[in-house]
Amino acid sequence: MGFRGSHILSITQFERAEIEHIFSVADRMEPYAHRQRASKVLDGAILGNMFFEPSTRTRVSFGCAFNLLGGEVRETTGIKNSAIAKGESLYDTARVLSGYSDAIVMRHPESGSVAEFAAASRVPVINGGDGANEHPTQALLDLYTIKKELLSHDRTVDGLRIAMIGDLKYGRTVHSLCKLLSLYDNIKLVLISPKELQMPAEVVENLREAGHEVVVSDQLEENIQHLDIVYSTRIQEERFSSPEEADLYRGRFRLNQTIYTKYCEPNTVIMHPLPRDSRVAANELDNDLNENPNLAIFRQTDNGVLVRMALFALVLDVVDLVDKYSHDVRWYAGGRF
Amino acid sequence: MGFRGSHILSITQFERAEIEHIFSVADRMEPYAHRQRASKVLDGAILGNMFFEPSTRTRVSFGCAFNLLGGEVRETTGIKNSAIAKGESLYDTARVLSGYSDAIVMRHPESGSVAEFAAASRVPVINGGDGANEHPTQALLDLYTIKKELLSHDRTVDGLRIAMIGDLKYGRTVHSLCKLLSLYDNIKLVLISPKELQMPAEVVENLREAGHEVVVSDQLEENIQHLDIVYSTRIQEERFSSPEEADLYRGRFRLNQTIYTKYCEPNTVIMHPLPRDSRVAANELDNDLNENPNLAIFRQTDNGVLVRMALFALVLDVVDLVDKYSHDVRWYAGGRF
Amino acid sequence: MGFRGSHILSITQFERAEIEHIFSVADRMEPYAHRQRASKVLDGAILGNMFFEPSTRTRVSFGCAFNLLGGEVRETTGIKNSAIAKGESLYDTARVLSGYSDAIVMRHPESGSVAEFAAASRVPVINGGDGANEHPTQALLDLYTIKKELLSHDRTVDGLRIAMIGDLKYGRTVHSLCKLLSLYDNIKLVLISPKELQMPAEVVENLREAGHEVVVSDQLEENIQHLDIVYSTRIQEERFSSPEEADLYRGRFRLNQTIYTKYCEPNTVIMHPLPRDSRVAANELDNDLNENPNLAIFRQTDNGVLVRMALFALVLDVVDLVDKYSHDVRWYAGGRF
Repeated sequence: MGFRGSHILSITQFERAEIEHIFSVADRMEPYAHRQRASKVLDGAILGNMFFEPSTRTRVSFGCAFNLLGGEVRETTGIKNSAIAKGESLYDTARVLSGYSDAIVMRHPESGSVAEFAAASRVPVINGGDGANEHPTQALLDLYTIKKELLSHDRTVDGLRIAMIGDLKYGRTVHSLCKLLSLYDNIKLVLISPKELQMPAEVVENLREAGHEVVVSDQLEENIQHLDIVYSTRIQEERFSSPEEADLYRGRFRLNQTIYTKYCEPNTVIMHPLPRDSRVAANELDNDLNENPNLAIFRQTDNGVLVRMALFALVLDVVDLVDKYSHDVRWYAGGRF
Repeated sequence: MGFRGSHILSITQFERAEIEHIFSVADRMEPYAHRQRASKVLDGAILGNMFFEPSTRTRVSFGCAFNLLGGEVRETTGIKNSAIAKGESLYDTARVLSGYSDAIVMRHPESGSVAEFAAASRVPVINGGDGANEHPTQALLDLYTIKKELLSHDRTVDGLRIAMIGDLKYGRTVHSLCKLLSLYDNIKLVLISPKELQMPAEVVENLREAGHEVVVSDQLEENIQHLDIVYSTRIQEERFSSPEEADLYRGRFRLNQTIYTKYCEPNTVIMHPLPRDSRVAANELDNDLNENPNLAIFRQTDNGVLVRMALFALVLDVVDLVDKYSHDVRWYAGGRF
Repeated sequence: MGFRGSHILSITQFERAEIEHIFSVADRMEPYAHRQRASKVLDGAILGNMFFEPSTRTRVSFGCAFNLLGGEVRETTGIKNSAIAKGESLYDTARVLSGYSDAIVMRHPESGSVAEFAAASRVPVINGGDGANEHPTQALLDLYTIKKELLSHDRTVDGLRIAMIGDLKYGRTVHSLCKLLSLYDNIKLVLISPKELQMPAEVVENLREAGHEVVVSDQLEENIQHLDIVYSTRIQEERFSSPEEADLYRGRFRLNQTIYTKYCEPNTVIMHPLPRDSRVAANELDNDLNENPNLAIFRQTDNGVLVRMALFALVLDVVDLVDKYSHDVRWYAGGRF
């Protein structure tokens, strides 16, 4: 599978076998992410962590993943004062920055910008989110989480029963996840949203073409029974014309422990792409779920490190060297995972 | 002493013996901070240097301390665009970020926020300043500096004679230092401030309960004689309702070489938490003191690196491994310390 | 040659022999910058990459250069909230920051600020640009590029024929490059600019005093024949009183493949300090030149890493140790250089 030197731009570039290969590499990264071993395989390599739009969580996750393989990280966190503001083309930015680093993660507010950048880059580029378009590593970490959570219940992605809840119109992550799920078999999806924020028709169509069962609803309780996963999302406030318009939808579908106990199966896993909006008016996943062992939202972000390590290891072709250049960690790492 | 895996949130969490243990570990960090040796004990570890309020000096000092032990640093430098602005709770932020790193330093504008964050963190958290509340490493580096400066004059913290000068009402560092001094014996404190900016009554009370002698005054010259330390502070402009209100107090107590020579003992040590305000209207410590060997203000910031290295080594439990995983530095490091 | 422990503040501090020594060291950095070998000679060293004015490209280039020698980078990217805004002097900032790091790169919006900072620093300081004054590493990388490009055509800097085009009044890089060229012999310079944006008289005078031939013109086509180098620049919009005033000059001198083919010699090298302004109204170097093998603009930025590595190696006195502490890179580095 040709990962060596490749760009990671879109989930549509992968076949199922490739995705499963990424996940098997991610599994092998656990001793490093869990701080049992430290690898130096990328000792001397530099990641250009180029965030032309802010995103603390994603930026730090990519940076940590590269550090955990032994590499260094140089980064930028805004666009305002950059050369782009002086009329520099993405072509030029890519030619210059790819002379500084061994791999580049790029986030940019405009759809398609990362692909344009990658075309001019001399090193592998990973899409860290390009506007409303794609955020492939989020979709991969979501699917990786689903697979791992199901595995612990002796189930597989084939045959999955999942509800997606909230702002399904603007939520980039659910669109991408649906595309990935179309590579698998025999899935039941329940799409719960306000009528005005329904999943785009072409996404639903693709799912049905893949042979999946799709139920569309604007009711929560009756639709979260008999599921493996409930995947909640926040209202994408920044996509609405005003906060007031977003307020119309915020807090419409709230999951809390009482509802969970009453309607969900005892092992139904709760996911969310984060950040969850914990303000009173929203609160799509109540804090009283925090001690519920099926709340997987922080396992999702933990898994993000594994998936990003796997992608770096694959595009830089060091998968089989990670263990060779490693040592036991020397510090107290607690029992946090 | 239970430092392993602990959070460092407040100076009130320490007993005197623990503080002295921190200082003895800080002493052992000197060859590394002074660039004679380089340690790799934390090779592979990641610090999450999370500054949700800007502070170049403190942020860089913590980052360097972690680097000097061989670790990597991922960081953030603002709050505006972060997930917190999208309604994420400190609980969620802590759960996520603690999955990325081996230790976290957090600075945040709200009192109590760092403790709330630490309660949800899976890794040790060090308070880098939470609003008006605490900045424990500043207090520790101040006391560590006092101890070292006195030692070179064959004196100890017990029996210390110190003046604190300036904005004693809003100056967080002097409050914390006073709390630490209450763990020691037989101290004389002279508190010099405008009447409106006096040290809070409960701080003075605590000092007196500890058996210390406290003199309160609004006169400089007559009160800086017969002292070991004069600790000057700037007016905390950002705490006043307007710059104009701060102007009423700025420049009220100025120490310069002429006053020093006339009133101070020849070995009186001059300290300041920095930044000192060198604008004409303020100038609480004149530049003509820069060549005075008793000006210890830059030894304070140098000591900050030692104290922060010590805290990292303690909470990650590598104190006795720092030397083992080290080598001589290979570059020209001059004679700067 | 006394580089050890020195500051790099201005190109005027160098003699020709010193510049050639820097370039010979830069040549030796190629296996590292080209990712054949990785050096750890600065393992444990910390660069303070202090950008008190934003500049993504220059900041990342310096940071990468230090990483490629095995060192760590701590950095800052703005001035607004720093201690300087609270009245801290450059003297204090320098005393503090130089206690944290082994070398400092500083960029600052005010002319002369970096020299003032360096005077108080305890470690070597490299000027990363101080307002309209100097940006010495840009001038060095430009000259280094000229030398390498000419060498591949069996020519030398002595005897060079070069045109400088565009905003020669405000373009800091062309001023500095002219100063450097005055150290060489027998050069022909064609200075092409709008009459209002001509090269300052004293720069022209210096060139003539050095025995060089200087032609001043406001016509492009007839003046770019029989040259080794055409060095294009963008209009320094930020120096004009309004964007509208800058618009008067933008796009006045455009080089594209048609003009190049018609007027230039087949091996004439095209340079630009970047960013080039690719907006329609400016477009001083057309994108249709991107496949022209004589377009050296990205070789310039690549060479910047080599020159900056050389300067770090020289001031920290590790030139002869870079190879000793090195290993082959372990990852796929492609064939990008």
